[in-house]
Formats: sequence, C-alpha cells, structure tokens
Amino acid sequence: MRQSDHRAIGVFDSGVGGLTVLKALMERLPQESTFYLGDTARVPYGTKSAEVVTRYSLKNAEFLIGREIKLLVVACNTGSAAALPQLSRELKVPVLGVIEPGAQAASTSSQSGHIGVIGTPATIRSGAYQRALMEARPGVKVKAKACPLFVPLAEEGWVGGDVPRLVAREYLADFARNGVDTLVLGCTHYPLLKDVIADVVGDRVKLVDSADATAAAAASLLAGRGLLAPEGATAQHRYFVTDVPERFVEVGARFLGRHIDSAEQVDLTF
Amino acid sequence: MRQSDHRAIGVFDSGVGGLTVLKALMERLPQESTFYLGDTARVPYGTKSAEVVTRYSLKNAEFLIGREIKLLVVACNTGSAAALPQLSRELKVPVLGVIEPGAQAASTSSQSGHIGVIGTPATIRSGAYQRALMEARPGVKVKAKACPLFVPLAEEGWVGGDVPRLVAREYLADFARNGVDTLVLGCTHYPLLKDVIADVVGDRVKLVDSADATAAAAASLLAGRGLLAPEGATAQHRYFVTDVPERFVEVGARFLGRHIDSAEQVDLTF
Repeated sequence: MRQSDHRAIGVFDSGVGGLTVLKALMERLPQESTFYLGDTARVPYGTKSAEVVTRYSLKNAEFLIGREIKLLVVACNTGSAAALPQLSRELKVPVLGVIEPGAQAASTSSQSGHIGVIGTPATIRSGAYQRALMEARPGVKVKAKACPLFVPLAEEGWVGGDVPRLVAREYLADFARNGVDTLVLGCTHYPLLKDVIADVVGDRVKLVDSADATAAAAASLLAGRGLLAPEGATAQHRYFVTDVPERFVEVGARFLGRHIDSAEQVDLTF
Repeated sequence: MRQSDHRAIGVFDSGVGGLTVLKALMERLPQESTFYLGDTARVPYGTKSAEVVTRYSLKNAEFLIGREIKLLVVACNTGSAAALPQLSRELKVPVLGVIEPGAQAASTSSQSGHIGVIGTPATIRSGAYQRALMEARPGVKVKAKACPLFVPLAEEGWVGGDVPRLVAREYLADFARNGVDTLVLGCTHYPLLKDVIADVVGDRVKLVDSADATAAAAASLLAGRGLLAPEGATAQHRYFVTDVPERFVEVGARFLGRHIDSAEQVDLTF
C-alpha cells in the first residue's frame, strides 16, 4: 500500500453543480490535486432517465480514469442515484457518491426521525435517498419531493428575491407544516438556494447538504487506504467540460466560491 | 419532377417544443406523413453553445435523412439559429427553419416597425432573428431578450399562475413600456406560455409564433417543387426520441394537442 499518493481525485457532475462538492473537498483536503469534469454538453441529468444518466456517468468515469486518478467522486446526486452500483462494480479505483454521506449526515442530525429529501425528478424517482436513509436509520420516516425548477433557477443565478421564494413555497409548503426536522438538499445545485429554502421551511428544519459529508467520507477513505497526498504537497486543479468553457468558468465561480482560471473542452462522444 | 410524393416530412427538435410546429404542419397539410425526432437525451439546446448545437443538429438530420424524407423542418429555434446554413449546404433535401418564417410574419404584422424577440440564450446570442428581421424589413428596430426560465416552466407544465406571471414580468417589463407592437415567440416552447406573456406585455403587442408561418412555408415549398402528397392520402406519424419515451409521450401531448400513441427510442451516439 502506498503511504502517500500524488495522484488526483477525479470528480464529475453534469455541469457546475458538483463544484459545491469540489469546494468542500478542497477545504478539507487542501493538499490533494483534483480533476473536475462537467458534462456541460448534456446537462441537466435530473430530468433524464436512469438509463441515459448511467450511460453518461460511465463515459465520464472512463475519461477521468484515463487520467490516472486514485478516487472517483460522483459529485452529482442524479448520477450517484443511477450509476453508483455499476461504477463501483466496474472500476478499479474506489468510487464515492454523494447520497450515502448525505443520508448519514441527515440521519445523525435528525431528532424526530422524520427526514425530508428534495432533489431532481430522477433522483427522487430512483428512491436512492429513501433507501440510504432507511439503512442509516431503520424506522426513519422519509418525505421526498422533486423540485425540478431549482436547477434552472440556480444555473441562472436567480437565488434570491420573489421568483425563487415563490417557487420554493410551491414545492416546500408541506415540509414547513409537518414533523420533518431535517431536510436533505439532494442536488448539488440546491445549496445556492439555501437562504430561500431555509426561509420557507423555517428555523426548526435543519438543512443538510452532501458536500461536507462527502468530503469527510473522501478524507477518511483516502486515509484508510494510505492514499493521501503528503501534507504540504502543492495541489493542482484542472477543469474539463464537454461544451465550450466560457459559461462554465463564469457560472462555476459562483458554485466554487473562487476564480476558475480556465477549463479545457474535451470531446466525449456518447 | 414528381407530381405527388408519399415520402414523409422530417422534423426535429431538442425535445417536445417542436411539436407545436408539427401540430401546425398537421393542420395545414393533413395528407402529409411525418417523422418527428426529439433529442430528449440532450435537451435543452438553448443553454448550450452554437458549436454543440450544430453537432447535435447535424446528427439529428442524418438520422431523419436515413429514413428517406422529402423535406427537413428544423422545428427548434436554437437549432435553426446555429445550424441552418450548414444543413442547407450539406443536405440534398430542402431544409426549412423556423426563424425566417417567424421573422417574415412579424415584419408583416408590425405597424410601428419596432419588433421584440424573445428566445433562448443561444438563439438571442446568435443574432439570427435580428438579422432575419432586418432582411425582411430594412430599417426595423429590434429589441431582443433571452428568457431562459421559460423552457423549464413550459416543460414542467407551470404555464399559468403566480410563478410564470412573475417570471414573465421580470423578463418582459421593458416590452410593455416601449414602442414594440409585435413580439416574436422565438422558441417553440413559448406558445404554451402565451396567455401569461400576453397578460404582461398587454393588448397593444401582438404575439407571433413561428409554427403557423413555418407550416405555411413548408406547404408552399412542397407545392412549388411538386412534392406534395396527393389529397386524401392517409398520413402516418412516427415519433423518435433519444431518451426513454414515457415522458415524451406524456408531456408531448400537451404540446401537440393530441394523444401520442408511442415513440421509439433510438440510440444516437454523438
């Protein structure tokens, strides 16, 4: 087993959403290099079928594996819901999704055992969160709801003001009224709408996003297998996209919370 | 030259939006058979680059050409804006987009010569409507605006009520206040939001959608080249999609205004 490993962590998402996970990874593991792939030519995944999302996810993984990574993080809830079992079976590097860490964090946080989950139509339809929560905490009561308009709102930067507040009210009124005390933001775009969502569901509902929990899981996985980069190593971060990079670089900065110098366009055919 | 031609008209769009154009075609040319391809595995096009939209459009066209069509209708404003010149150059069948017919209709309808255009970011950025309007009516004054949230709203069926009204107000307040007397709905999804849009821009602004104008252009092109099917011919309509068909069949009925029996999933790799 290697004692220190300079190879990068590979991270993919349908677009910019996964940068919220990358941000948490960078904060927790500042010595680790990363390759991030955003499949911006096919975004969004959340309104597509499990079959198509799985096909895209496998191709994304193949691209990153080809660049010699030591860990693959599927920083996309829809991709994790659809493709994680197959990715874990087929790849030789460890694979981490965002759903299990998020479900773990939520089940620890909840007092009442009544947990809400919001996500894309594909994620909610898959039942992946519902299953992960049941496993993490048998007997838990789960209320799940798809919120398809949250992704375009976040992508457009409409994260405050009347429109997002009204949309959030339409989707989330129920969560404010029943016994849910913890709400999982089951889509990497949703943390951008955190303030609006918190306003609607009220103080008594704790919001959990998978980014920090996933970064923590990545850290302990790497540590456990002796795959961490040595402390003080200089991390390099590279970004790849399947559509032209301009919009990714611009919008991505909002998600990553830091400037993105450049992204390379790659031609993945699938 | 053939005097009657039973071959189908090929129509493609990124998803369900182009069904509003297909509907107009069916009404005007009830004897014509049609093949409709919705690229539901890559929808939407309107937030992607011209480069990627052109690549997808060429592949869609190739699929339909392989099924022996007599006319290709690009029933997608974004696809028309990005790829029409190249499609017209490369294909042996006549090709018709939705932008020129729409621009023609708008320039005829406008009294003031001050015309508004709304569409996806890609369509507006391309300047295709602006150019087509200038050509149709030199000296015309054009006000163009991208309305990216209209597509997800229409796809989700949120076409009435507070949310779409508020979104429309954010995008269109300017159109209600200045001399625009005609507004082109430059995206095949937007006719579903017609009522809300009309409410916001007011009575004095006439809404023009490309569907009827495109169907009229198709009819005169086919007649002019002797390619019409004989009157009384029995039309057949087939639907193809690149993602699983269930959602297309369900949502598509809203756009087409009639039941869709089935759609065949085809595996286009690009």
